[in-house]
Amino acid sequence: MKDRKLVVIGGDAAGMSAASKVRREHPDREIVVFERGRHTSYAACGMPYYIAGQIDSAERLVARAPQVFRDKQRIDVRTRHEVVAIDTTGQRVRVRDLDSEREFEESWDELLIATGAAPIVPDLPGVDAPGVFSLSTLQSGIDVFEDMERNTPRRAVIVGGGYIGIEMAEALLDRDLEVTLIDMAPQVMSTMDADMTESIAQTMREAGVQVFLGEALKGIETGSDGRVRQVVTDQRRIDADLVILGIGIRPRSDLAEAAGIGLGAAGAIRVDSRMQTSVQHVWAAGDCAESFHIVKEEPVFIALGTVANKHGLVAGINLSGGTMQFPGVLGTAITRFQDLEIARTGLSEKEAGDMGIAWRAKAIEALTRSHYFPGAGKIKVKLVVEDDTGRLLGGQIVGRAGAAKRIDTIAAAITAGMTAEQVTYLDLSYAPPFSPVWDPVQIAARTLS
Amino acid sequence: MKDRKLVVIGGDAAGMSAASKVRREHPDREIVVFERGRHTSYAACGMPYYIAGQIDSAERLVARAPQVFRDKQRIDVRTRHEVVAIDTTGQRVRVRDLDSEREFEESWDELLIATGAAPIVPDLPGVDAPGVFSLSTLQSGIDVFEDMERNTPRRAVIVGGGYIGIEMAEALLDRDLEVTLIDMAPQVMSTMDADMTESIAQTMREAGVQVFLGEALKGIETGSDGRVRQVVTDQRRIDADLVILGIGIRPRSDLAEAAGIGLGAAGAIRVDSRMQTSVQHVWAAGDCAESFHIVKEEPVFIALGTVANKHGLVAGINLSGGTMQFPGVLGTAITRFQDLEIARTGLSEKEAGDMGIAWRAKAIEALTRSHYFPGAGKIKVKLVVEDDTGRLLGGQIVGRAGAAKRIDTIAAAITAGMTAEQVTYLDLSYAPPFSPVWDPVQIAARTLS
Repeated sequence: MKDRKLVVIGGDAAGMSAASKVRREHPDREIVVFERGRHTSYAACGMPYYIAGQIDSAERLVARAPQVFRDKQRIDVRTRHEVVAIDTTGQRVRVRDLDSEREFEESWDELLIATGAAPIVPDLPGVDAPGVFSLSTLQSGIDVFEDMERNTPRRAVIVGGGYIGIEMAEALLDRDLEVTLIDMAPQVMSTMDADMTESIAQTMREAGVQVFLGEALKGIETGSDGRVRQVVTDQRRIDADLVILGIGIRPRSDLAEAAGIGLGAAGAIRVDSRMQTSVQHVWAAGDCAESFHIVKEEPVFIALGTVANKHGLVAGINLSGGTMQFPGVLGTAITRFQDLEIARTGLSEKEAGDMGIAWRAKAIEALTRSHYFPGAGKIKVKLVVEDDTGRLLGGQIVGRAGAAKRIDTIAAAITAGMTAEQVTYLDLSYAPPFSPVWDPVQIAARTLS
Repeated sequence: MKDRKLVVIGGDAAGMSAASKVRREHPDREIVVFERGRHTSYAACGMPYYIAGQIDSAERLVARAPQVFRDKQRIDVRTRHEVVAIDTTGQRVRVRDLDSEREFEESWDELLIATGAAPIVPDLPGVDAPGVFSLSTLQSGIDVFEDMERNTPRRAVIVGGGYIGIEMAEALLDRDLEVTLIDMAPQVMSTMDADMTESIAQTMREAGVQVFLGEALKGIETGSDGRVRQVVTDQRRIDADLVILGIGIRPRSDLAEAAGIGLGAAGAIRVDSRMQTSVQHVWAAGDCAESFHIVKEEPVFIALGTVANKHGLVAGINLSGGTMQFPGVLGTAITRFQDLEIARTGLSEKEAGDMGIAWRAKAIEALTRSHYFPGAGKIKVKLVVEDDTGRLLGGQIVGRAGAAKRIDTIAAAITAGMTAEQVTYLDLSYAPPFSPVWDPVQIAARTLS
């Protein structure tokens, strides 16, 4: 493989992980990365905290800048270069230099598509108005920050109660805005079961967020200056001078589709376990590509930084002549609203039901530390198991400091195919500042054993 | 089983867990518990924090008092009753009422020995002097606390740098004592590898603890009032008006041994996976009993509250006519010194070497949170794997807030027989306040893949 020229489309987590891995294995191989934006390898997940003012500069979110890739790794990263077409037969891509508007073609022997995901923007009046933002690229986060500096908005409406919505609610409260969050669903965090999310909505309300659930966005009205002035839902009008849309994302797979590359789950690029697409010598990784779900045993579209990095590493190993299979995902995710921690992995009850699996589930309440230890906080753990075997299918956690990272123990146990009984007897750690003697995860497991 | 009278010797975690389980299964069965002390089901691990003044009353460490067991569960708990002999043939125990000095016999159909462990007190001059304490029962913690109230000691020497030593150093600093810690070993925390413990000793020194390693206790000298005045080591004399001995524990198995019940690892009572001893109808659980080590695949003596509770549950299920096998232990343990968190599980390099296993190990340094996130602290993770297969054998963690509970993910992975490569691809959780995008456990695993 070491003489085969690699072209990568997209310079964020997946693309640069793969390019870096290939460079480590093949010091002299030609590697070209085309990135439409100005930044490479940035932590998109850090944007809410940057907007909150907790991180002093957006540059700090950049793990490695384009010039560093060029200088230290001799990877030919070209920012502000958009690939506009892929020719899989002629093994070329058509590239537009966004600054000069010049177009040119670049040949490849191996092509990695790592074009990421795009925020879903509903087709409603006013969604393009100034003051209305989605979060995706680092630039989109900088745009929100700079808009707030220039226009000092006072009232924000967040559309969507998922990770971005919850994190942005915290961020905008930190900036002293009045914050309203609406979600079409009757709950926040729709990747979790309703009973686990009630305390999240309640905590948000107690912190001063107006939360309107089961309420659909109908449009956005602008003032005489053209900027957002009101958000219109199916139930009310809400004054707003800043709107954040966080209603979901879709894979950026149009370019691949136009080139005849097969799509799979939710329109993401179909890949095998080595991250190879339906076309030989064309690979895909990161948010634009599907993943195999370990419990569902089918491809899914789950766009997360952790997955993108692993996709990139797997693609990089295979692009270097190695053999690595990506074992798949559980949809493990974690977030917080102020000091309330939130995490989930595997199947929710709802997902188990949708799949037609016979399941049992139990949610327990316990404490993060020994009951007598200062700072012991509430923790709620739900586990979902297969009804007849007791095999662990999923877990959800909501609680105070130290609660949510326990999801990793559950993720490891699900991956290993453990039953609730096996989790009950795991030799987990205990000392009063860290846990009750039965870890809350095991308290939940015991009730299902 | 439900008509078979159960006698339990020892009313702490293992004994009362078993008794409670049996009561839940058999509402009318006769259950008698003899406990030598005044307390049942207490959190011995909480004693350093009680002595530190962080917990307002020793009663708060009691999970369930004798009267509650009597009233709510109709378990006939008799405190201040010491079993002095076991007759396995006649199925009787000889009991001394410590208040009345009266002795009597009690018959049983099934007997559970849960006599716990005792602190090792070296045979050296002065170890029995007033002001010299070991920690084991709740009463021993109360004794230290009351002694400090009465005598307001100013200079403490702690002998032994294990969990108790480290936790007591923090506690006594909290009480404004001058604290010196000595250990015969050249490192603190001898269940971990030396390279992982250097920062622990350093943090203790920075906090004001004098730490003398590789230094053996030779004796304790008393003043004219008979109270401890100086600790004598092989290298110096240290003024002290309080001494805590934390040099290790041994199983309380004398009673079992005298009755002809077989002993096993390190003198602990030999048990099968159902917690049955060498004598039919006699069971053992908790700190007095051995455990099967999942990685070593042999019995070991590991006395910890987590293990005692699981032993008790397993014994209780089997004593109720069920069938449960205890899968074994990894020696998972966690502690902290002030804000430095410490954890270990499975085999250290030293243990792997002692067993003659061909191993590889790697320690990495990372951060507990994303590098740009406020409060990101250092974390050091070491993983030990089998050399040829990459199978995970053990892990050690030292680091700042949020570091140590990650040991549970490692414990689950070891139990499942995962390789470092499998750990690398686990779908663990990530968000900037909780972790870098590759969790430190996975960063360590990657270097060993």
